[in-house]
Amino acid sequence: MSEPDPTDPYAPMRRGFVEETTTAEEIDRMRAVVGPLAASTRELVDAVIRSEVPLEELESVRKEIDQLVERLRAQQLPGSYGVRIDASGRHRAWGNPAVGLRNPLAPPLEVHREADGSAWAETVLGAAYEGPPGMVHGGISALFLDQLVGEAAASAGKPGMTGSLKLRYVAPTPLGPIRFEAKAERVDGIKSIVKGRSLVQGRVCVEAEAIMILPRWARDLEETTGVGDA
Amino acid sequence: MSEPDPTDPYAPMRRGFVEETTTAEEIDRMRAVVGPLAASTRELVDAVIRSEVPLEELESVRKEIDQLVERLRAQQLPGSYGVRIDASGRHRAWGNPAVGLRNPLAPPLEVHREADGSAWAETVLGAAYEGPPGMVHGGISALFLDQLVGEAAASAGKPGMTGSLKLRYVAPTPLGPIRFEAKAERVDGIKSIVKGRSLVQGRVCVEAEAIMILPRWARDLEETTGVGDA
Repeated sequence: MSEPDPTDPYAPMRRGFVEETTTAEEIDRMRAVVGPLAASTRELVDAVIRSEVPLEELESVRKEIDQLVERLRAQQLPGSYGVRIDASGRHRAWGNPAVGLRNPLAPPLEVHREADGSAWAETVLGAAYEGPPGMVHGGISALFLDQLVGEAAASAGKPGMTGSLKLRYVAPTPLGPIRFEAKAERVDGIKSIVKGRSLVQGRVCVEAEAIMILPRWARDLEETTGVGDA
Repeated sequence: MSEPDPTDPYAPMRRGFVEETTTAEEIDRMRAVVGPLAASTRELVDAVIRSEVPLEELESVRKEIDQLVERLRAQQLPGSYGVRIDASGRHRAWGNPAVGLRNPLAPPLEVHREADGSAWAETVLGAAYEGPPGMVHGGISALFLDQLVGEAAASAGKPGMTGSLKLRYVAPTPLGPIRFEAKAERVDGIKSIVKGRSLVQGRVCVEAEAIMILPRWARDLEETTGVGDA
């Protein structure tokens, strides 16, 4: 095993791909508990934004939340969740803010990857994602489209990290049901060009074009762990 | 008062700028309660991602969260928060996922606008914002840079909505302390060109360039409410 290079900016990333001995059954048991826990916390996020109960009641609720935080923190990871790889080689990016099962910031998007190098997800975006009144924040569209272009590149067999992302806001995006989709258009060595868009009721709201690049550390890592598929 | 146009996609946005009779003192009292409530909920979000307590304890916490949601929802806004304008003309975008005081998804960024048409914010990004292990999700950088370019345009006296946004990921972005900054470079009628970037320990991670456009509805609205400054 080689010495870690302290000047290597990717070192924490490599360390964050954690291989575990967890079995598929254990993962399923965890999923059945942390999924609903994150879902309830999403409801809490929405309620914190929209509640109109008296201030004393808000204060009382805050104190209860602080106690729950203390209970959860009784044992916790020293840092972020990372990407966990179970005994069967499956990846869990459960902390991801777009698709993470246990991240209350994520809707979470359930991304479907197709054999033709495309990916899509449908969800409903509520109060927590609002930018202009009644509309999805432009940066939230960017967040989910960035995730989708990455999934499409992986789906096309050329996983990578976003090198560049261009977004064109062609129409306002109302809160509510929305579809995100992306497709790898062209693969050129370690680069792939991926186009994506968001649609509301069949109308295009935001268009995206990304250049995805697989960095060297990931090309090395991919050979041993299949990490590019995370 | 003119009839609402049912085909107008901006109609919900216009309705979402709510003028209130709330006084500055009432706002301050609300801020002192909902700020800490959202802050505690952010801690909960982080703890939900990182907790390693037994599954039975996670289930027990989930039930408590469900009860808190019920208490908060006893009285609530019918929809999203929108942008509220108090009696003194100040705007509150408290539901915003980048800067919103009462949105637990937002760090929240505290954006400083300078007289020279620039804007900046410094914050610390933790587990909830993770994409690649140990790194900030590329879409999260996009979310906050989108907010910053909008603030810079407003700071330059040309508020607008994002027409296009180009992002270039020049270096990986580790979780932790981070700075976002943006500056309006050029104003051309209703368009302004704004450049932005994120930095970690003085090193540029992501570069952004945006074209901001003030749509017609907002130009009309600006004259009556100063809404462009929201």
